[in-house]
Amino acid sequence: MSRDVYPEYPPDVSELQLRDIVTSAQDWSIAHGLAVRPSPTSVSKSQDPTTSLAVTAPVTLFPSPFPRNCFDDALSIQEAYNELYARIASEESWLKGVVEELVGIDEFMAELWNIHKKVKDEGYVQDLSLGLFRSDYMVNIDADNTTSKASLRQVEFNTIASSFGGLSSQVSALHKFLLKSGIYPPDISSLKENDLIESNSARLLASGLAEAHNAYGPGKTSLPNCVLFVVQTPERNVFDQRHLEYPLIYDHSIRTYRLAFSEILEHTHLDSTRTLIYTPPHSPSTPHEVSTLYFRAGYAPTDYTSPDSWSARLHLERSRAIKCPSILTHLSGAKKIQQVLATPSSPHLSHFLSDSITSSSVLATFAPIYPLDTSPAGQHARSLALNPATAANFVLKPQREGGGNNIYRSKIPAFLKSIPESQWPAYILMEMINPPPLKNVILRNGEAQKGGVIGELGVYGVMLWRNKIEEGEHTGVAEVLMNKEAGYLLRTKGDTSEEGGVAAGFGAVDSVMLVDV
Amino acid sequence: MSRDVYPEYPPDVSELQLRDIVTSAQDWSIAHGLAVRPSPTSVSKSQDPTTSLAVTAPVTLFPSPFPRNCFDDALSIQEAYNELYARIASEESWLKGVVEELVGIDEFMAELWNIHKKVKDEGYVQDLSLGLFRSDYMVNIDADNTTSKASLRQVEFNTIASSFGGLSSQVSALHKFLLKSGIYPPDISSLKENDLIESNSARLLASGLAEAHNAYGPGKTSLPNCVLFVVQTPERNVFDQRHLEYPLIYDHSIRTYRLAFSEILEHTHLDSTRTLIYTPPHSPSTPHEVSTLYFRAGYAPTDYTSPDSWSARLHLERSRAIKCPSILTHLSGAKKIQQVLATPSSPHLSHFLSDSITSSSVLATFAPIYPLDTSPAGQHARSLALNPATAANFVLKPQREGGGNNIYRSKIPAFLKSIPESQWPAYILMEMINPPPLKNVILRNGEAQKGGVIGELGVYGVMLWRNKIEEGEHTGVAEVLMNKEAGYLLRTKGDTSEEGGVAAGFGAVDSVMLVDV
Repeated sequence: MSRDVYPEYPPDVSELQLRDIVTSAQDWSIAHGLAVRPSPTSVSKSQDPTTSLAVTAPVTLFPSPFPRNCFDDALSIQEAYNELYARIASEESWLKGVVEELVGIDEFMAELWNIHKKVKDEGYVQDLSLGLFRSDYMVNIDADNTTSKASLRQVEFNTIASSFGGLSSQVSALHKFLLKSGIYPPDISSLKENDLIESNSARLLASGLAEAHNAYGPGKTSLPNCVLFVVQTPERNVFDQRHLEYPLIYDHSIRTYRLAFSEILEHTHLDSTRTLIYTPPHSPSTPHEVSTLYFRAGYAPTDYTSPDSWSARLHLERSRAIKCPSILTHLSGAKKIQQVLATPSSPHLSHFLSDSITSSSVLATFAPIYPLDTSPAGQHARSLALNPATAANFVLKPQREGGGNNIYRSKIPAFLKSIPESQWPAYILMEMINPPPLKNVILRNGEAQKGGVIGELGVYGVMLWRNKIEEGEHTGVAEVLMNKEAGYLLRTKGDTSEEGGVAAGFGAVDSVMLVDV
Repeated sequence: MSRDVYPEYPPDVSELQLRDIVTSAQDWSIAHGLAVRPSPTSVSKSQDPTTSLAVTAPVTLFPSPFPRNCFDDALSIQEAYNELYARIASEESWLKGVVEELVGIDEFMAELWNIHKKVKDEGYVQDLSLGLFRSDYMVNIDADNTTSKASLRQVEFNTIASSFGGLSSQVSALHKFLLKSGIYPPDISSLKENDLIESNSARLLASGLAEAHNAYGPGKTSLPNCVLFVVQTPERNVFDQRHLEYPLIYDHSIRTYRLAFSEILEHTHLDSTRTLIYTPPHSPSTPHEVSTLYFRAGYAPTDYTSPDSWSARLHLERSRAIKCPSILTHLSGAKKIQQVLATPSSPHLSHFLSDSITSSSVLATFAPIYPLDTSPAGQHARSLALNPATAANFVLKPQREGGGNNIYRSKIPAFLKSIPESQWPAYILMEMINPPPLKNVILRNGEAQKGGVIGELGVYGVMLWRNKIEEGEHTGVAEVLMNKEAGYLLRTKGDTSEEGGVAAGFGAVDSVMLVDV
């Protein structure tokens, strides 16, 4: 068995060469906004009370090799994925069947579903939905196969707060700069400029928000319209978000505001037509009508610190603003949905994607995923998960977004035994992906560490659609206003860690160097 | 008498509005490289050993009003100034007369002149000189004149290491962003986008370096050519310099390297034709031929820490590389030269600028400057400087570049008495300029301070010329290859301080809002 699909990489560099690359990368990154606010452990609030310091975002010093066929597949399939998730989010009866399995065991899902039900009872006043999606993949090498053919395996599909689209554009530009300017050692023959792939994710995601803003129309009031970013505070990853805001103003002349999730009720209200009005606290005389709500908060239970948080989410969902995402779209990103689609022999994928070629292209990216319920498939999965020998091939994932919650391999049996069996259906069991070995150098807080890494490719998608709403119920997609692939993200983590979220401090933003394997 | 020539400015904003502008400015600035490395007093070396942190550069929150006629005058006169200083730097016999007055009393000038003499004895091997100049002005209101007509007064002319051209481009873009995006309060009727003036100084200065690089030609060796930035270490203002390096690679495909002034002898050598070879310490196998030396160090005596420093400067001056600036050009920036030109009834200006219209346009920007020597003009100046009543209208300046060395007004008599009279000719006495009162808000390290400010306009110039060298002596300008105005800088300082160097920590980078006064 040969799992070495990539060329020898990255090239050996001396300590002095490495320092030169680090210095060049650190200066370029700050000069081009490839930055984050420093962590509170490295710079305390008292040292920088007004948050004026910044630091180079965690990045790889070299682009990572990525199989050309896998990259092409991932990009070309994105529109099908956009359509799939728009159809899921707009077919309430189907979604209900899946989500209602969870409401007894996952309080967060239950609360989201309750919001949908309340707004449904009152009647939705906005039939447009915006998705800024990201489908995440790893490259898989079949460990039993001597051909070493690389293929894509989907890790997850994000329907809310898909991050790093702003920084991804910058890191691909950084790697191109280091190559073009000759800062990489001249003997890197494996690096060719044409194989380094730019990501235009920042501008493309912004164009999605602009499309929604424009589709919203002139509004119900005489107030100026705006796009409202709903954010966490403090937000270390603020520049990633700002890189979406700047093209909105520069390319589309659209005003954006940022509002903390915790301050929604204080600074917004609904008028009699449920038009959402935002009154900037610093400028009370210039209220704005919100065309589009872009959630970069509200995806994790920790954002909901009090009953007011849920009132705020309901308040926004009731509004006429276009939500990115709506509650139904948010729910569609549950791991349970992914599992239902990806359980071997599932009929659901072809229900949503009737074209068989499209459907089988999407299907080819699924890793086998099992429920942990009491169905026959679930019973089979339970036996796999409880046996340490077979559990070693799996990861256990909760429904929720965000890193830090997964249980890996040998830890699965003990974990399951530590929680009530009634909770087991809140998890899905997913076959581990076997990525080919790869090395790179990760730069974090000025320290460069070389070692084995694992890359995760995310492909962004913009989907703006009109839901068919009949007698108050979402019954399908009435019209697609925009469906496009919107650039990519490569996140790379040390292979000693089994989590990949850069925001959580475990990984780095990377870019793709295509290789033929 | 009315000295209020500007509209009420800046507008009153509430504390919340101010915080919103600060947050927006701080995020935008890091996202666009309008940054400096933090000072060692705010972030210690041990806290950030690899220099990964950055902070918003000191900036004004609003563009400052500037009289349209003065701004237009300053830009339109720049080519004449470029020509004037190229002619001064290339007429050795004239320069010698001025500089030799100083060599007995100013050791720094003497050392520079010695370098020139040594290279002259051996024979110069490069007849091209590059100047990236900056002519600095303040707006003057005649205190005795009830018309309040604003006019320009030159503060100084910089022939070496003219800084902030990189950041200036960014701050004019910041102010335009804050206006365009509606972050400034909507009731600032005085702010109009067309009156906010972009500075393209970064790209224009880079184009000057590119012109010199190309004029250098294919070189004497088979090595790749490069532009070498000679820099101080550590350099907090590194992004200002990087913003010149990036267009060199992006727009001109020219490789740049950065070399500490203290490491010149270690990493460069001259071959038998005095071609300058730079061997990057991190890449010894790829030596480069240096086409152009760009000094961002070596302008202050403090850069010359040992005899080796002078050997290094001599070593570079001997080389075939085009110097920005050459020793003669560096010497031409001495305050003594400015004084000789600007002493009332001086014949020297018309010697260099024979066109009387050009000459009188330049003359109109001179503030009266007197020598402190034993000439009749010098005797008159000494009496003005020693009398506290008259000294109050003057500033005493040494020959050298950089802030922090000027003696103001009432402090002049005591200062002169504290040094030997033989040292007095090392200083010039310049009439103080009376700028119109103005307010702005300066943002520094996250703190916004509103108050009275004074602005200093710098206009950049690029001048590339061939010296006429006859029998080893510089006898004039043989050919002008490039002469252009290259954008502007507005530096603004609190009017309680009497120094204006932002690098020295006393001021902020600003941009121009034109007003008709």
